[in-house]
Amino acid sequence: MFNPELETNKILEFIRKYFKDNNLGGVVLGISGGKDSGVVAGLMSLAIGKENVIGITLPCHSRENDKKDAISVANKFGFKLLNIDLTEVNDTFESEAKKALEINDDSLLKNSSINLKPRLRMASCYYIAAAMSAIKNKTYIVAGTSNKCELYVGYFTKGGDSVHDISVLADLTVEEVIKIGEYIGVPDEVIHKAPDDGLSGLTDEQKLGVKYSNIAKVINGELTSGEEYDKIEKLHKNSSHKFTIPTYKK
Amino acid sequence: MFNPELETNKILEFIRKYFKDNNLGGVVLGISGGKDSGVVAGLMSLAIGKENVIGITLPCHSRENDKKDAISVANKFGFKLLNIDLTEVNDTFESEAKKALEINDDSLLKNSSINLKPRLRMASCYYIAAAMSAIKNKTYIVAGTSNKCELYVGYFTKGGDSVHDISVLADLTVEEVIKIGEYIGVPDEVIHKAPDDGLSGLTDEQKLGVKYSNIAKVINGELTSGEEYDKIEKLHKNSSHKFTIPTYKK
Repeated sequence: MFNPELETNKILEFIRKYFKDNNLGGVVLGISGGKDSGVVAGLMSLAIGKENVIGITLPCHSRENDKKDAISVANKFGFKLLNIDLTEVNDTFESEAKKALEINDDSLLKNSSINLKPRLRMASCYYIAAAMSAIKNKTYIVAGTSNKCELYVGYFTKGGDSVHDISVLADLTVEEVIKIGEYIGVPDEVIHKAPDDGLSGLTDEQKLGVKYSNIAKVINGELTSGEEYDKIEKLHKNSSHKFTIPTYKK
Repeated sequence: MFNPELETNKILEFIRKYFKDNNLGGVVLGISGGKDSGVVAGLMSLAIGKENVIGITLPCHSRENDKKDAISVANKFGFKLLNIDLTEVNDTFESEAKKALEINDDSLLKNSSINLKPRLRMASCYYIAAAMSAIKNKTYIVAGTSNKCELYVGYFTKGGDSVHDISVLADLTVEEVIKIGEYIGVPDEVIHKAPDDGLSGLTDEQKLGVKYSNIAKVINGELTSGEEYDKIEKLHKNSSHKFTIPTYKK
């Protein structure tokens, strides 16, 4: 049985030890308004102190609603919340890239466009982390928010949310993340929101075509055949290139 | 003894096999005007055909000279060269980030600023690769250009040049990269240029404080003590966090 209290304490210990061993100053993370970033921000605030946590909202043609949820997480745990609006950066980027490609058909740029945003968000977190390191004269790192189910099916952007310096949810299923979030008091509307990327208008499960609960069952060996199993294993197999770079060896 | 002809043929075979096994359409890479990207672009053109290689110059407050060298590489191997000027994207990004930080002291943003550029370059390569995949209806991937010496001392930007889909120089020292470049005919002025980041005005070796030839000696076990050895091993040890993300396990 998954024990949220026990697991939370072990995670806090893991974070504290890493910060102490490496003499770190603080942590930066993007706050999407979803449950994963809410739980990580909460855990970090409890582990190293809210004054050493910087959350960033990174809207990019985004819904105002997501910001409201980010603010409620920041208020709950008391960490500082910055805002960097990426809309103009994103649009300038796309306009320069389109000039280079000499194309005007936006349907050909759908994937380019969707994955640009998490990459700009990653760059933003590292920009702020390096600035905070200089200001505080102690290293700030960037926290990742991917959970075990997302990682299993490769549901992340390479060079985007996959780039970070510490990962605390990577071994926890979505259900386990929710239990920890409830235990540490992440606001209800955040912890029980259907996860989506805030970009495509679809929930994650609609985009993936599989349910997170079934991904957890496949990971735990409780689902071993059938259409949903096949879909999940296909996603898993097809995302292996995101984890290992093929490298020529002499 | 390192045999450039033999090694080149093995690399070409490695690239061809990976493209065939994964039914890939082509490759995208940033062309800095330096030797590493010149050699990778040449190898890719020879392996999969110049018509399937897209080079991109990604100037960002950059010297015109670097572009001249990029053009001479593209002319030599015949691949298409796009240009995306990142100056305005970069400046818009920095201006938004500064607003969030509420600081005006640029000296505190030196590291933020230096590492932003490779991250924007990475995002550009992936943007173009995804667009080409849609246009050609066959997957384009992004090639990395790091060599073994750079990797050994962690001389790359996490989330920048470290993010790519295929790596052909990662097991070759700088000297070996030069030999391969000479063998495949990378233009002289490119292959024998002192490597630098095109950003700080210093060469790589000045920035690192160690010589690439000595890094190769440490890797090969020919240099095992002394001040230079200590410096190199310290850089190596201090960059280990760039390779493995500390991850909480249940």
